[in-house]
Amino acid sequence: MKARVHVMLKDGVLDPQGEAVRHALGAMGFDGVEGVRQGKVIELELADGTTEDRIGEMCERLLANTVIESYRIEIV
Amino acid sequence: MKARVHVMLKDGVLDPQGEAVRHALGAMGFDGVEGVRQGKVIELELADGTTEDRIGEMCERLLANTVIESYRIEIV
Repeated sequence: MKARVHVMLKDGVLDPQGEAVRHALGAMGFDGVEGVRQGKVIELELADGTTEDRIGEMCERLLANTVIESYRIEIV
Repeated sequence: MKARVHVMLKDGVLDPQGEAVRHALGAMGFDGVEGVRQGKVIELELADGTTEDRIGEMCERLLANTVIESYRIEIV
């Protein structure tokens, strides 16, 4: 089975990488880019029957820093 | 309007970061993790009416390195 974990910085946490992308897009002539946030996506190839709870545990312990990041699990 | 761009390494391109995550999960006792690929997700807040073509152009020129990465655009 396959799962996808999306990890994004929480609202209010400064995202310098996203800010740099926003600035670069503007400098390249792409108008109307009002905001950019950059996050991670982690695709996991897992043994069949792995529960979403188990994946949540992976997120809490390794994949996301839950102090500043939120995560979302998607089974695909 | 809001768009989300997913950027992943193409198949066959070595992903040391994903490999490190896979190894770490195994070492932490999470069995059955057969593969991990790590990519980026970029959330764009755009002026209404920005076309998907225009977003594709942003990907081609800045957001993805199309030699080694593939991208997928999602309007949300």
